Amino acid sequence: MKLPLKGIIPPIVTPLINNNEIDEPGLKKLIEHLIDGGVHGIFLLGTTGEAPNLSYKLRKDFITKACAFIDKRVPVMVGITDTCIEGSLEIAEASKNAGADALVIAPPYYIPMEQIEMVEYLENLAPQLPLPFLMYNMPSCTKLHMTLDTVKKAKELGAIGIKDSSGNMAYLYSLIEEFKDSPEFSIIAGSELFIPETIFHGGHGAVAGGANIFPRLFVDLYEASVAKDLAKISELRDKMILIETKIYNVGQYSSKYIKTIKSALSALGICNDFVASPFRKFNEAETNQIKQNIKELNF
Amino acid sequence: MKLPLKGIIPPIVTPLINNNEIDEPGLKKLIEHLIDGGVHGIFLLGTTGEAPNLSYKLRKDFITKACAFIDKRVPVMVGITDTCIEGSLEIAEASKNAGADALVIAPPYYIPMEQIEMVEYLENLAPQLPLPFLMYNMPSCTKLHMTLDTVKKAKELGAIGIKDSSGNMAYLYSLIEEFKDSPEFSIIAGSELFIPETIFHGGHGAVAGGANIFPRLFVDLYEASVAKDLAKISELRDKMILIETKIYNVGQYSSKYIKTIKSALSALGICNDFVASPFRKFNEAETNQIKQNIKELNF
Amino acid sequence: MKLPLKGIIPPIVTPLINNNEIDEPGLKKLIEHLIDGGVHGIFLLGTTGEAPNLSYKLRKDFITKACAFIDKRVPVMVGITDTCIEGSLEIAEASKNAGADALVIAPPYYIPMEQIEMVEYLENLAPQLPLPFLMYNMPSCTKLHMTLDTVKKAKELGAIGIKDSSGNMAYLYSLIEEFKDSPEFSIIAGSELFIPETIFHGGHGAVAGGANIFPRLFVDLYEASVAKDLAKISELRDKMILIETKIYNVGQYSSKYIKTIKSALSALGICNDFVASPFRKFNEAETNQIKQNIKELNF
Amino acid sequence: MKLPLKGIIPPIVTPLINNNEIDEPGLKKLIEHLIDGGVHGIFLLGTTGEAPNLSYKLRKDFITKACAFIDKRVPVMVGITDTCIEGSLEIAEASKNAGADALVIAPPYYIPMEQIEMVEYLENLAPQLPLPFLMYNMPSCTKLHMTLDTVKKAKELGAIGIKDSSGNMAYLYSLIEEFKDSPEFSIIAGSELFIPETIFHGGHGAVAGGANIFPRLFVDLYEASVAKDLAKISELRDKMILIETKIYNVGQYSSKYIKTIKSALSALGICNDFVASPFRKFNEAETNQIKQNIKELNF
Repeated sequence: MKLPLKGIIPPIVTPLINNNEIDEPGLKKLIEHLIDGGVHGIFLLGTTGEAPNLSYKLRKDFITKACAFIDKRVPVMVGITDTCIEGSLEIAEASKNAGADALVIAPPYYIPMEQIEMVEYLENLAPQLPLPFLMYNMPSCTKLHMTLDTVKKAKELGAIGIKDSSGNMAYLYSLIEEFKDSPEFSIIAGSELFIPETIFHGGHGAVAGGANIFPRLFVDLYEASVAKDLAKISELRDKMILIETKIYNVGQYSSKYIKTIKSALSALGICNDFVASPFRKFNEAETNQIKQNIKELNF
Repeated sequence: MKLPLKGIIPPIVTPLINNNEIDEPGLKKLIEHLIDGGVHGIFLLGTTGEAPNLSYKLRKDFITKACAFIDKRVPVMVGITDTCIEGSLEIAEASKNAGADALVIAPPYYIPMEQIEMVEYLENLAPQLPLPFLMYNMPSCTKLHMTLDTVKKAKELGAIGIKDSSGNMAYLYSLIEEFKDSPEFSIIAGSELFIPETIFHGGHGAVAGGANIFPRLFVDLYEASVAKDLAKISELRDKMILIETKIYNVGQYSSKYIKTIKSALSALGICNDFVASPFRKFNEAETNQIKQNIKELNF
Repeated sequence: MKLPLKGIIPPIVTPLINNNEIDEPGLKKLIEHLIDGGVHGIFLLGTTGEAPNLSYKLRKDFITKACAFIDKRVPVMVGITDTCIEGSLEIAEASKNAGADALVIAPPYYIPMEQIEMVEYLENLAPQLPLPFLMYNMPSCTKLHMTLDTVKKAKELGAIGIKDSSGNMAYLYSLIEEFKDSPEFSIIAGSELFIPETIFHGGHGAVAGGANIFPRLFVDLYEASVAKDLAKISELRDKMILIETKIYNVGQYSSKYIKTIKSALSALGICNDFVASPFRKFNEAETNQIKQNIKELNF
Repeated sequence: MKLPLKGIIPPIVTPLINNNEIDEPGLKKLIEHLIDGGVHGIFLLGTTGEAPNLSYKLRKDFITKACAFIDKRVPVMVGITDTCIEGSLEIAEASKNAGADALVIAPPYYIPMEQIEMVEYLENLAPQLPLPFLMYNMPSCTKLHMTLDTVKKAKELGAIGIKDSSGNMAYLYSLIEEFKDSPEFSIIAGSELFIPETIFHGGHGAVAGGANIFPRLFVDLYEASVAKDLAKISELRDKMILIETKIYNVGQYSSKYIKTIKSALSALGICNDFVASPFRKFNEAETNQIKQNIKELNF
């Protein structure tokens, strides 16, 4: 794996038939769809991947199958975030055995943690990990917004990058500034809207949920950003806004982000739209809305 | 099990030797300590019990051992809250097999949920449960403050009570008001400070973490509240404030609540003070502080 | 003025004809209504009094008229909270001249302040005040929840008490505990629901908005609390819950609290229901609802 | 005044000798400094201008003097935000008389307002205003984050633009998107860091506090952004980050933003560093730090 990790790295959804079973043909099609689209890596079992809602057995099964289908064509990262350290280590081991390249760690997320507690936790966890790891800042789900100091400590403990999904661009810029003399340390945006800004300022890429649906569009935007092609960026950005309007605006609540992507992938004939408990897939009206909007977009 | 559940129901800590092993003699001593203290029930694997930080294997082992030690002398409730429904059902099944009396459910806690999503989740979960269940309102950890409507729906789906740890007394009063015509539905306070208020207004009891350390004190306060013995309440309340000052004020951050209780129990020679990852037990200075303060309290 | 201030001290509404004119007959009737009801003091120009929305001219006019009507029958406190210190001093001077007894100060409320800044502000303001003063904790409007340390500093700078409207009963109890050796320092609850709890634990009274409408009911509840008459408290508390349901639940948003009280006073024929800009009085449907509910309550 | 308003519009500090007196020579120097720096407009009595902390008399005096010094060389906007509508109208009238070009309105900020209440307030206020007006979104101080719908309603009621200081870039982009077919409606960023992004996406300018100190730097960055000169932008951005590090990082708390700018202007020999109550100017150590850092920056 070449450092820094960069480019478009979709946080792949976990195609499911039910709470206990992978949609295997769907997973295979989805992986081909992403690799055909030119993505630079694939991130398994993130928030979009519904990791906390899946049993360990299912997560390990998914890692094995996804890594086999990807077959080393692009780097694979696996989310091991969990409230139980034994669970994280179990997933980490399975990732190593399946041939994944790196792990991704967000703070344990039940009792609110403080910065120093997160650092102490990493001091315990990092030496036990069988693969390189990236940090994942996701305060809306974990309740901890990792400070620059915490990220610096994580780097000292071996982290090779950070994915920031806080949606706070000033923070993202401050990360880029902080680590500008560490060219192998990746700064990855979690917000789709900010890809050109991230690249212009010295960031390395994006973990963009929408790249599950339209991988080529996001890869083109990344490349136009690297090339500083403002005309192309503007044209692609108009399409991104249509995705926002036509796909992400369907449904309600935080969980809708997962539902819209799965529903859109189902509408494209790629994979099943089942969403794991505690959530539910879109109802018929929402599903039809997504079908029609996907047709209208016609990307 | 007689309804409504009432009285002092300690959320028992999980005595541990390390992340993978129960402190079995400590657990036995702790249970005798609680039952000698006159508690009216025991709640396993709540927030104080560090449930989300323990592996399923350890949780099931703990349930089996605790239920065996308790041996039907008081009702046993078990927390099954989890981000993964399969995990919740696995713990529920183990609880039934071990002879527990009821289950306790808080919202899945990674992606923020809405009220309607919690109701839909319960519609799915409740029919699969092998035992009666109570709701558990714990917004600081789960991000969802369940509305009265959600609790009413839970009751329709079979809930036999609610433990409220929101710390919002107006909400607690409104719960009591709402369910005053359902005398078998328990309203249980999660805040130690509010025991007399809860009982005066028609609530049923308290899940009080401090009752791990001083069960008799809390039982006396409950009984004085039922008897409306204001002089006795005032005397006991002064002791409660000393606990606040001398025990709970040691250490820092949200997690300190678990650490102080385990440290105090260790100072009393009852059980090990190991705290599961991602947290750590108190350092030497904090441990000595607790030891000295426990001595000074001399309850 | 005898210290500590105690009992029921209504935060009187400001009866208005429009944004620039006092409803003078209404004010007179309201004051007689309160004093007939047995209140122990009157608080002018608090949040319920819409102080920040009234011009200095109007505020000074109101102070003069209200003090003249009250005519020393009960102690008068005046809110001088303002973002501009010159404005606060102008109102303080007018209060002194009108014969008021004490001033009430909450933090300046535009740019969020820190505790140390509030203390520095008091060090500047307190020596310039012509009358004794109380602190007013109102974080939902001022953004600053004053810590115990800040309140202690305020006491050192001359404060004779604090009104807490945070709604956090644990904080209110900690204030009572902190100042229990200063019997002349008043701890006054801002939450109507907590009157018995406040008195039982050693607090001194309540600034209860609802006492504008039903002063006798609140005075009775205060006296029953002092007498520890649990049967009477329970009976009065049932009435309080009816007020909550029938009056406070009409309308929407934070501002409704002012609107409901003014609308109820108008329904009782006491004063005008005009609400100062930026808010508006209740529309016809809401007004009729209040009229009917007041009739039903029939207290 | 030509619409849309665009470019760099400093929110000018209010140079003071004490709480009651303008630093008139300082104000004159500051205005020449800004106009020499090429700014496209000047915004009086915003948050940086400490408006809520100044008496009406002082505010009106400031408007008159500032407008006289500016003498129509650039458009002048005046903040009229207040909790009291009579106060807002008084400032609006004084602005008109002094020859200002437009008014700026944020929500009244004591009792939290809802969107619909803000719209109703504007329906009342807008027809009474003697000059065109812009909206000002400043949720950290006013507690109300105005939705797109509220801004659209404001536009229907006559607003000619909006300054967004929420720091939320996704919101700023959505404003630009919403009003892209209204080329005369200004979208102005309140965040200094986001000038190129704002201009690239179709926004019109920035109300940048730092432009008080280094107006030319901000004007250059605006022009480089309009010209899409990425090399120049990158060079100027490095300077902006130095300002962040060397100036804004001195001191503590929300209020430091005003203190740092006044202290830097004093270090540059432009105006007095007095800060109005409830805040205080920097102490000696902080003042020396700013002096030294300004020297080191040497822009």
